[in-house]
Amino acid sequence: MGSERQTRSTSGEDSLIARYFKPIATDPGAFGLDDDAAILAPSGDDIVVTTDAVVEGVHFLSDDPPDTIARKALRVNLSDIAAKGATCAGFVLTLALRSADDAWLTAFTRGLGEDAKLYGCPLLGGDTVSTPGPLTVSITAFGRVPVGKMVHRSGARPGDRVMVTGTIGDAALGLAILKGTLVTDEAARRMLVERYRVPQPRNALASTVRDHASSSMDVSDGLAGDLAKLCAASGISAVIDAPSIPKSGAAAELLARGTVGLEALVSGGDDYEILCTVAEAKAETFASAARGAGVPVSAIGTVIAGHEPPAFMDGQGREIRLSRLSYSHF
Amino acid sequence: MGSERQTRSTSGEDSLIARYFKPIATDPGAFGLDDDAAILAPSGDDIVVTTDAVVEGVHFLSDDPPDTIARKALRVNLSDIAAKGATCAGFVLTLALRSADDAWLTAFTRGLGEDAKLYGCPLLGGDTVSTPGPLTVSITAFGRVPVGKMVHRSGARPGDRVMVTGTIGDAALGLAILKGTLVTDEAARRMLVERYRVPQPRNALASTVRDHASSSMDVSDGLAGDLAKLCAASGISAVIDAPSIPKSGAAAELLARGTVGLEALVSGGDDYEILCTVAEAKAETFASAARGAGVPVSAIGTVIAGHEPPAFMDGQGREIRLSRLSYSHF
Repeated sequence: MGSERQTRSTSGEDSLIARYFKPIATDPGAFGLDDDAAILAPSGDDIVVTTDAVVEGVHFLSDDPPDTIARKALRVNLSDIAAKGATCAGFVLTLALRSADDAWLTAFTRGLGEDAKLYGCPLLGGDTVSTPGPLTVSITAFGRVPVGKMVHRSGARPGDRVMVTGTIGDAALGLAILKGTLVTDEAARRMLVERYRVPQPRNALASTVRDHASSSMDVSDGLAGDLAKLCAASGISAVIDAPSIPKSGAAAELLARGTVGLEALVSGGDDYEILCTVAEAKAETFASAARGAGVPVSAIGTVIAGHEPPAFMDGQGREIRLSRLSYSHF
Repeated sequence: MGSERQTRSTSGEDSLIARYFKPIATDPGAFGLDDDAAILAPSGDDIVVTTDAVVEGVHFLSDDPPDTIARKALRVNLSDIAAKGATCAGFVLTLALRSADDAWLTAFTRGLGEDAKLYGCPLLGGDTVSTPGPLTVSITAFGRVPVGKMVHRSGARPGDRVMVTGTIGDAALGLAILKGTLVTDEAARRMLVERYRVPQPRNALASTVRDHASSSMDVSDGLAGDLAKLCAASGISAVIDAPSIPKSGAAAELLARGTVGLEALVSGGDDYEILCTVAEAKAETFASAARGAGVPVSAIGTVIAGHEPPAFMDGQGREIRLSRLSYSHF
């Protein structure tokens, strides 16, 4: 007491962690973020590991609300966990920040904490670093599946049905709106922008995917490109009926009016829906289980033998030429 | 054949992964980086999870050799795994790049692959994203320990010896040299800069730490500040004999000459040595096991009851005032 050692030294980084992240790190394996590492307890299951980063100006916009940035950063990872048929087990994050702004961090960690609870995916640990560059949130998320039961991209077989959840293309339209290249009425704008900012990962469908799908992945870079990857991994091809691709009312209207083309919807990315293949014999129980889980699923085509990229056919059975299949960083 | 679909669409990001990362992702759980997620198979052990990022201009310098950037990014994480008493199980990385430069990526992935082999810590997966900002490498590493056996920061008890591996302060001096604020002879320069660029994590000591240490952490932000954190987590204090803090010949000479002060060594960070406490009764077998593992360890002080930050004493038993304990980002 009374010495210069009276006050314990706490670095800015430590107090940032204590103030904003500790309150949401309530899982016992996180040790209150007071240690160097976290623990995932063994359950006898395989641990599914996925990692995805979101970068300001690339995956989200500088003026996006901070809670939606947190939600998107976590949800793009949860979407992978869901597509692999796994249940959520936790996540760690690295936050590269230009400065420690109280209002921003408060909103960011509120969004993160709410989603961690909503999806049953606790924050286990993390690292905060300073950067002069764009805000970057890198998350590694964990799931559990019974040993050997992770659903791969590579199991699709000729004859399987190609299925997709939700609606496709909304997020790409939302980004176009935010970038000022697309104008819609206010209701459509609000819905499409929300779809871009806050994906709805299909974790409610994970066990259904695990029990029924022959192959599965999430749609993050555009349906066309992601389906091409699934086909390549499975060594098969597919024929897609473009009119069957599920579209929101807003997207369907923009398409019908000719304001946007099909390509904008299927190569835009940021959907975070599940794309999977289901054997004909399991299709009915899959659809029924999906209904039970409250997740809309649509059959959009059929797996065929071959090594060509998937073909997208219009309502008259003519192939639609797509010049760009997906978003790429490089 | 002959259609526009003849060539499979491969995005720049996919070919970057295929070209540089796939060859080093040989672990079966990585699935050749062809899937959305990796698998850590169950072993009945706890999975230790740690995550640390390195940022250009903050943790490494723009002109550091790319292979050393990769090694440092991985090794700062392996150091946490070692300090927790865990054996390496694998890692995932996120690489945020301004551009995909062939020579840089070739050297980076060579360093990464060599270290993955050297430490038995396979690359399981990752994400590459483009950024207009500084190069950032974020790694999440995994280790295994028998259930409940992770060594925490919080187990130190009065009477325990405070132990540290290797030498302290070299990396901070190396950084000062690279920044031009410290000049030394060429041999010292080479050694100290190498210590900054390429940490030597003490994974060879992990099982010894697990079997003997009452508390443990790695020294990443400076011995003084990190010891203060360990003391706070354990609810104890410590008295450190500053002359006993292990120093390299180069550091000892700079200190003796008065070119640098003790504070530069103990608050500089980037040591990536293990700081641990060992009960008096286990001290001898700990030292002997460390010798067997080929890792130099030094006793630098004693844990005492109390809640004050640790005191650093000079050779005459007078307390040394430290104005700064550790590096902080914010």
